[in-house]
Amino acid sequence: MAGELNAWSEIVRRRFDAFLEPRWRDAWPTSFVAPMRYPVFGGGKRVRPLLAVAACESVGGRMDLAMPAAAAVELVHTYSLVHDDMPCMDNDDMRRGRPTVHKAFDEGTALLVGDALLTDAFAILAEADVPAETRVAWVLELSRAAGWRGMVGGQVADVTLGSTIKDIDTLQRVHALKTGALIRAAVLMGGMAGDASDAQRAILSEYGAKVGLAFQLADDVLDADQDDKPNGPPSYVKLLGVPETRRRARAVADEAIAAVKKLPFPKTLIELANYTVQRDV
Amino acid sequence: MAGELNAWSEIVRRRFDAFLEPRWRDAWPTSFVAPMRYPVFGGGKRVRPLLAVAACESVGGRMDLAMPAAAAVELVHTYSLVHDDMPCMDNDDMRRGRPTVHKAFDEGTALLVGDALLTDAFAILAEADVPAETRVAWVLELSRAAGWRGMVGGQVADVTLGSTIKDIDTLQRVHALKTGALIRAAVLMGGMAGDASDAQRAILSEYGAKVGLAFQLADDVLDADQDDKPNGPPSYVKLLGVPETRRRARAVADEAIAAVKKLPFPKTLIELANYTVQRDV
Repeated sequence: MAGELNAWSEIVRRRFDAFLEPRWRDAWPTSFVAPMRYPVFGGGKRVRPLLAVAACESVGGRMDLAMPAAAAVELVHTYSLVHDDMPCMDNDDMRRGRPTVHKAFDEGTALLVGDALLTDAFAILAEADVPAETRVAWVLELSRAAGWRGMVGGQVADVTLGSTIKDIDTLQRVHALKTGALIRAAVLMGGMAGDASDAQRAILSEYGAKVGLAFQLADDVLDADQDDKPNGPPSYVKLLGVPETRRRARAVADEAIAAVKKLPFPKTLIELANYTVQRDV
Repeated sequence: MAGELNAWSEIVRRRFDAFLEPRWRDAWPTSFVAPMRYPVFGGGKRVRPLLAVAACESVGGRMDLAMPAAAAVELVHTYSLVHDDMPCMDNDDMRRGRPTVHKAFDEGTALLVGDALLTDAFAILAEADVPAETRVAWVLELSRAAGWRGMVGGQVADVTLGSTIKDIDTLQRVHALKTGALIRAAVLMGGMAGDASDAQRAILSEYGAKVGLAFQLADDVLDADQDDKPNGPPSYVKLLGVPETRRRARAVADEAIAAVKKLPFPKTLIELANYTVQRDV
């Protein structure tokens, strides 16, 4: 990450953690406080909060206005990881170098922590000190991006279609739901926080969808570099090869960048789009 | 159920099912449609929707205004049953005479169906054709009643404290969260749909909390009549005995009824409170 973007990101991460820090402190039973906090303060890169804040600032909004949206999206992302790691889904024991929630605590706790984080995402939006219209628009966007028309639908598609996917269109459709919808929501909800106009929202929506795709393409290249699993899940690299996947990631990121150049303050969004695809080079 | 209440309930149930019927029809992958619908159209009594509609009508609101609130609360109730039935929680194979979701489909599907229903509850509220202020008030109420400060918190308390509960205050606190919060939310959100004043909301909140408690007391009497499990979870009957539990259920229902008599059209709420405690006599 370039110096200036890095400094800005550190400020956002610090404010973000400060925003969520006091939450759940007085949860009862008190034994629930630790499992609730464990996955939220577990070393995530906060990609979605960074995008939400950058989108808010791109239309002239203050950073703090985007915090509830950033927090809600990050909690939805976090709950999805907690549930996905469970034995009945991916059965992963480790995440970010630490035991997963169902390993550090137990399966029932992981189930309830996920449920609580998902529910609290909507509480945070509804409690925010912004106009009711903005809060409703946030809830609508997040619930659609996270539910059966978005992330959960993509997860279902991934589980049911899984290794049978042989064409790029289906793979892209699954990813657009599973990871793309929430990334796009982060950007759009950040823009709503900054009171983006309808035209600006359309630009941010396009940017969000394209950055989400670029992110996935670049991720597949990174994974392919690390280890090659011929029997693993389908990926862009398997269908397109590394050079073409890398080329597409760059092209899609460039389209995202071209779109936001019409916004008043697009600099950070441009840097984030570049960072998304340059992580691997 | 008395004749008039019964006829009204049937109308509400029919409209309620018609409200939810078209939803998820175009879910993708199409294999997700059946598991989503399975627990929602699974023979539930729709107690919470009935309460929401009755509360809306008690302040002069039309039935249809309460439907999004009724649906959202019922979906939250439904998701909680799907997740609670899973092997890592109560491990129940049957519910309402049918295999539970993880038995009819599989565990991963049950997890995702629950997540999707919970998320969609908030989408339904945000999409409703009522003022933004009402939608935000709904989301705030439901997210608090369903999350760590409500139902999930009560579930955690039930799991962690469980059989160690020996005093009536702790038992009541657990039940107030685990089942009471959502019943109270159903009533209050129905009132909000009918544009209840602050004073009316306070009355409905008191009624909801008391009907929730009466419901639990009466349920414990019903369970005690059916079979006696000395090693089962703590219950009001175990701590108070059947006669005193039955007396308290009646007394609390009467308090709920006394409270709503100040509302313009309290008849159905009164009948529902009576029905709650008379199911067992």
